[in-house]
Amino acid sequence: MEIYFDNAATTRLSARAAARMERVAREHYGNASSLHLAGLRAEEELKAAAEEIAKTLKAEPRELIFTSGGTESDNLAILGTARSRKGYGRHLITSAVEHPAVLESMRFLEEQGFRLTVLPVDASGKISLSELEAAIRKDTVLVSLMYVNNEIGAIQPIAEAAALIHRLNPDCYFHVDAVQAYGKFEIYPKRLGIDMMSVSSHKIEGPKGVGFLYVNRRVSIKPASFGGGQQGGLRSGTLNVPGIAGMAEAARVAYEDFEEKRERLLRVKDRILAGAAELPGVRANSAPGMDSAPQIVSLSVEGVRAEVLLHALEAEGVYVSSGSACSSNHPGISATLKGIGLPAKLLDATVRLSFSAENTEAEAERFLELFRQLVPKLRQFKR
Amino acid sequence: MEIYFDNAATTRLSARAAARMERVAREHYGNASSLHLAGLRAEEELKAAAEEIAKTLKAEPRELIFTSGGTESDNLAILGTARSRKGYGRHLITSAVEHPAVLESMRFLEEQGFRLTVLPVDASGKISLSELEAAIRKDTVLVSLMYVNNEIGAIQPIAEAAALIHRLNPDCYFHVDAVQAYGKFEIYPKRLGIDMMSVSSHKIEGPKGVGFLYVNRRVSIKPASFGGGQQGGLRSGTLNVPGIAGMAEAARVAYEDFEEKRERLLRVKDRILAGAAELPGVRANSAPGMDSAPQIVSLSVEGVRAEVLLHALEAEGVYVSSGSACSSNHPGISATLKGIGLPAKLLDATVRLSFSAENTEAEAERFLELFRQLVPKLRQFKR
Repeated sequence: MEIYFDNAATTRLSARAAARMERVAREHYGNASSLHLAGLRAEEELKAAAEEIAKTLKAEPRELIFTSGGTESDNLAILGTARSRKGYGRHLITSAVEHPAVLESMRFLEEQGFRLTVLPVDASGKISLSELEAAIRKDTVLVSLMYVNNEIGAIQPIAEAAALIHRLNPDCYFHVDAVQAYGKFEIYPKRLGIDMMSVSSHKIEGPKGVGFLYVNRRVSIKPASFGGGQQGGLRSGTLNVPGIAGMAEAARVAYEDFEEKRERLLRVKDRILAGAAELPGVRANSAPGMDSAPQIVSLSVEGVRAEVLLHALEAEGVYVSSGSACSSNHPGISATLKGIGLPAKLLDATVRLSFSAENTEAEAERFLELFRQLVPKLRQFKR
Repeated sequence: MEIYFDNAATTRLSARAAARMERVAREHYGNASSLHLAGLRAEEELKAAAEEIAKTLKAEPRELIFTSGGTESDNLAILGTARSRKGYGRHLITSAVEHPAVLESMRFLEEQGFRLTVLPVDASGKISLSELEAAIRKDTVLVSLMYVNNEIGAIQPIAEAAALIHRLNPDCYFHVDAVQAYGKFEIYPKRLGIDMMSVSSHKIEGPKGVGFLYVNRRVSIKPASFGGGQQGGLRSGTLNVPGIAGMAEAARVAYEDFEEKRERLLRVKDRILAGAAELPGVRANSAPGMDSAPQIVSLSVEGVRAEVLLHALEAEGVYVSSGSACSSNHPGISATLKGIGLPAKLLDATVRLSFSAENTEAEAERFLELFRQLVPKLRQFKR
């Protein structure tokens, strides 16, 4: 039996999303920009998909810019804001535990003359609202915070941050990387005060290579790439209508029986957190219940290298991650684990388990059984 | 019977490409950056796909950067060169008939202080090598030319241009937008002297939302977007392995029975060119045989607006394009048609037919029959 506990890295495409992609690719394969019927039919599929996704956000379809995924969405929000707002100000704010798609985009802008404030986080991975308050300046054009941290599941105080930002500097935009949050939380950007929000399809059992950026219609950004002028000029390139339709289907599925699915995730997570806590020298970097994301558990295991544990579990058919797979080609110290002040000896002794609603409590039990067997063995091994 | 003659806008996904995407998405859905077996299996699919595509180019798999399509590939080549070479020089060269993904990227760089030379083209759509020679300077860092023009099918003298560029300025890079050429021509970048080359999957019956940039290993560009550092840091974002596998399958199909498919395209094209020439007031902007691309026919029809003809044909189930669908959201004068010196009255009287190897001579006959009926009627209508 294989147990896939790496859903924060990527998920398996759901059967419904696959079927819809296949149907649209076969029946309505035209270019959505073409003027003839084949183009029109593709455009109608596109509109239907945009409406379905917009509905999950209580947003308008025209507030969605379709991209190739979370990374491009983050880049577009950040570089696009910089390009449109640089005459107004050149100060940016983010946190120490962001995805590299946010942090590296900001570092690039720093090279171009922007100034950057990186907010620290507490032991649970959260920023401090008073530190955010102190950081906001008259020339701050963008604050970018992630909704759910991809490595430990920490939830940022998004609504409170938004209120603060808009009160202190009504001209400053607030971007939220919601790649690990969308589908697991009900997120209504307008109600929360989010101006832009990045989402990736392959984290919610949709196809890979697709995502979107929500852009509130009052927000004005410039494109980050150039071409035929599709999507109001904000994101050129032939629209991947089958992929977008697959993402819309995945979004629908994610918000169907939403509470029930979240309960299922929480049962798996909380069972693992409780079971792991029984072992000496195991530290959980994620909180139980809804104090952190329902689908992510980070465990630091004293005396066992994460990679060794990962491969020992793999040998038993259980797939977890060491750090974040999004940057596992970049071995190195995790900014998130360092950011929460994890002791140095645990930095490379931390694994992440991440769940989908398909995972079961039986899988959680099987994991715990293996974990209890393997950890003492691997510790001996190390000596 | 529907006749789809808009394959330069986009193609129908082939059954083989669809089947391979589906299999990879279902079986090997892991994140290619993940360290466990599910990640490794995805990485193996990725490697197999890269090898298959590289083989069609006589290139190395590591010389391929996977992107979301032709637009992103063009942007990466141009912005990436500008970022890596701006210390060396700030002069760029392109032609007057490029896709907006090339031209608009260069215009953006112009705003940033680069200087741009736009080469004119002759009546057939080709640049002059002596004008290219005169344009190349010591500080020229990039020349970008399209292999096959998307609106009329003109073929640029790529090998000759490459030889000239590399002789006059060995440090200048040569980028080729081969979006309409790959799959229809055997293109070996190293033999031709191409340093970078953009390709889109959905133009060759592969999935939408995928493409690649070939980058010769001697060429050093910087990324145009920022993130987790995948693909050697040149293009971050979780790799769309199912899409890339689908594109590889489409590439294999395109180069199987290659000559036979090209003959089929040429028979359809040449039949239409010959038949259309019999009508008075119809001008072909594409040359017969291999003097222009085998899959594209541009026809200017005196006294009939392109959109009117397009919709009259659509009513009979025949889909063609007015200008280029890639930018049909941008109504306006086509730079290509203007570039070849088409009389003003024909600029909005020009339709493009573009074929796949699935199109038949019977479809060409059916088109000609309709064309002969409709054109005189629509001309009357106009008076």
